Amino acid sequence: MRVRHNSNAETFLKEVNNICIDNPKEYIGKWNKIFENENPLHVEIGMGKGKFIYQMAKRYPDINFIGIERNKTIMALAIKRYLDNSDDKLNNLRYISIDAENITEIFDKCEIDKIYLNFSDPWPKTKHEKRRLTYRSFLDKYKVLLKEKGILQLKTDNVSLFDFSVVEMNNYIMKFEAMAVDLHKSKHAEENIMTEYEEKFSNKGQPIFMIRGRF
Amino acid sequence: MRVRHNSNAETFLKEVNNICIDNPKEYIGKWNKIFENENPLHVEIGMGKGKFIYQMAKRYPDINFIGIERNKTIMALAIKRYLDNSDDKLNNLRYISIDAENITEIFDKCEIDKIYLNFSDPWPKTKHEKRRLTYRSFLDKYKVLLKEKGILQLKTDNVSLFDFSVVEMNNYIMKFEAMAVDLHKSKHAEENIMTEYEEKFSNKGQPIFMIRGRF
Repeated sequence: MRVRHNSNAETFLKEVNNICIDNPKEYIGKWNKIFENENPLHVEIGMGKGKFIYQMAKRYPDINFIGIERNKTIMALAIKRYLDNSDDKLNNLRYISIDAENITEIFDKCEIDKIYLNFSDPWPKTKHEKRRLTYRSFLDKYKVLLKEKGILQLKTDNVSLFDFSVVEMNNYIMKFEAMAVDLHKSKHAEENIMTEYEEKFSNKGQPIFMIRGRF
Repeated sequence: MRVRHNSNAETFLKEVNNICIDNPKEYIGKWNKIFENENPLHVEIGMGKGKFIYQMAKRYPDINFIGIERNKTIMALAIKRYLDNSDDKLNNLRYISIDAENITEIFDKCEIDKIYLNFSDPWPKTKHEKRRLTYRSFLDKYKVLLKEKGILQLKTDNVSLFDFSVVEMNNYIMKFEAMAVDLHKSKHAEENIMTEYEEKFSNKGQPIFMIRGRF
């Protein structure tokens, strides 16, 4: 989704810096301090309007969640909606607005238990394949950041991104835990929380693809 | 496809034993003698009515093809149609009627360049997963029979078999060369030869899945 840059968004994000951490580099290796517990840490890269991570945080109070979104205007929308809808503040949910490229400046080695990539930009042209969030240079980063049995999970409706990602993850010698070429009709449907985008495309009868593996 | 057993089929297959080899164990390690050349050897396991292997043999005269089908009645139908349709005998095509379970009695180590599994029986119940032609015990056999850079390729319209096969092949540490969750719309469509089953299902708008890898 393309959203016009909104300078009010930056002002708003500063006001809610207890939720959207504005100095994330200072917490590298110590995100547990923010959450004040030693619970597992799950990170969504490219959370968009944030429904997925919000619902996950509500469903799993014993897991800490961080939503990452580069676009500050979308991030502000996500947080506004979270503040409007949530009866109680979710102590296990925080947001960071950075580019995924810089994720190793924010998290330390073996700090994350699970990384979610939901409906990431497919960057369909071959000349842009390095920008896909499952390109080997990103896998290099995730491998460092994830704990020994940590999981990387991708959901997408994009055929080309899925084909590319499965081959890329395979050639990286990842171990696959599960795959679904029709997630909503698979045995993994029950545990699945849909993103906004997923709901829209799924309602059109489009199958959703999922791959889950570890390094 | 279930086909009634037909004792005429066995009689017919004996009559065409220059095409459907009735003593295949005798040729282990020396299939090149049958073809009288050193061309690459491609094998389809479970060829059904045989359109795929026949078309492949026509398209690629410098590759030797063997179609395997356990069911002798279907094998007889395939050969009858081949004899009816072919203007010239295809010197690069032979048939064997055996169970895939026994494939290592027929071919020697490193004798095959490519194995095709097309629309194999999905054996959907978990208690039958060992019968799926991509189960690890079958991968053990293919690994032995394939040459060093030999290829295993699966095509199917069955979601569960595809999900299972990709995870099974990945976790066997196979290296994937290509995957397509919508083969007919992918860059691999042009080279693709459709089976009878594939034509029927594809015409209904059903996507066809393909995975290709090596050991």
